[in-house]
Amino acid sequence: MLTLFHHPFCPHSRFVRLALGEYGIAARTVEERVWERRQEFLILNPACTTPVVVEEGRPAVPGAAVIAEYLDETRGIELGELRLLPREIGTRVEVRRLMSWFNDKFFAEVSGPLTTERLYKRQMPTSAGGGSPDTEVIRAARHNMRYHLAYIGWLVRTRDWLAGGRMSYGRTVAAFPCRRRPWRHGLDGNDRRAAREPARALAAGTLRHHARPQLRPWRG
Amino acid sequence: MLTLFHHPFCPHSRFVRLALGEYGIAARTVEERVWERRQEFLILNPACTTPVVVEEGRPAVPGAAVIAEYLDETRGIELGELRLLPREIGTRVEVRRLMSWFNDKFFAEVSGPLTTERLYKRQMPTSAGGGSPDTEVIRAARHNMRYHLAYIGWLVRTRDWLAGGRMSYGRTVAAFPCRRRPWRHGLDGNDRRAAREPARALAAGTLRHHARPQLRPWRG
Repeated sequence: MLTLFHHPFCPHSRFVRLALGEYGIAARTVEERVWERRQEFLILNPACTTPVVVEEGRPAVPGAAVIAEYLDETRGIELGELRLLPREIGTRVEVRRLMSWFNDKFFAEVSGPLTTERLYKRQMPTSAGGGSPDTEVIRAARHNMRYHLAYIGWLVRTRDWLAGGRMSYGRTVAAFPCRRRPWRHGLDGNDRRAAREPARALAAGTLRHHARPQLRPWRG
Repeated sequence: MLTLFHHPFCPHSRFVRLALGEYGIAARTVEERVWERRQEFLILNPACTTPVVVEEGRPAVPGAAVIAEYLDETRGIELGELRLLPREIGTRVEVRRLMSWFNDKFFAEVSGPLTTERLYKRQMPTSAGGGSPDTEVIRAARHNMRYHLAYIGWLVRTRDWLAGGRMSYGRTVAAFPCRRRPWRHGLDGNDRRAAREPARALAAGTLRHHARPQLRPWRG
């Protein structure tokens, strides 16, 4: 039995839950509040982030991208055409590029900050950084969101499955920004309209207005 | 002939240069100043980050982790025991965990901000965010550095090759923080001494004082 340490609001956990669903893998789920820094969880993943997958007799598998590779390597071959990491080398590159785009870039610039400010901070105690959302961070993330939604729009219009000719991690990872999800509560009607603007120039490389994540000292 | 778009100061580019060196792959290198947002480069990688690997007849391969998988899948089997992603499934998980630790976490918390503040900003025009380094960012990155160096120290003391029984991407990716490199100029003698402290508690999961990257609007 596979155990998934996750959080309902964590975008990376959601990607792994979708992938497990596509693969038809039943998993025991454990909700992990990473800000509590549970000792047992830190031993599984010293980075103290969700998701983490644990299977008997195997080391813990931390992080969305590592889990995606692990699931493919342990289940992919028997799944044949249903595997989410295609066999052709060029398509694998594109699927992994999209995974990185959404799990890393989109997370850093949009979904991570929105999830933290709007959802996690309500649950976190003040000593762990909880409290009122930082409106400046939300404003920056919403600004970035428009560019990302436009890029997603371009991907969806020009490709059937985002990468390759069928279902893949590339589509799984891009699926959740396209649905009404908790972090979308940060968007108002204007944002959604802006996101529908033609995105050709953007896709051709004029995506300029991303926020640069800046480092601040931990205030725990 | 493989072409590598890179920058001499970019930590991810350095990881890929080391991996190419280990594999004995000759590559043509093109120095890319990502802040110039060259149209031709944006077509190769819309995220506009180095490194990118290009081979004839194949799509461009962007990002350190995607390149690592690509090199292994295109050259790994013929290299046999010299491949940098071992065959055993548990070791693959640990190698990928370490790649992610250094390429994502260490980069976000230490090497990325130090490289940007101390090196890139000198070369960048003011319109692209160049100018004086942000001392608050440098202070946060140096603070984080101590914890990371202590973790690296623990890894080095308890494992011969960091992951698995021989050379791997896990060791390649951890190699550069251990050497005197441009971003280390941000460290003074006190930092280096602090990093030598025993790190057992840290490795057991008390790594608490990381900076949380915060999002700020793009000031380009």
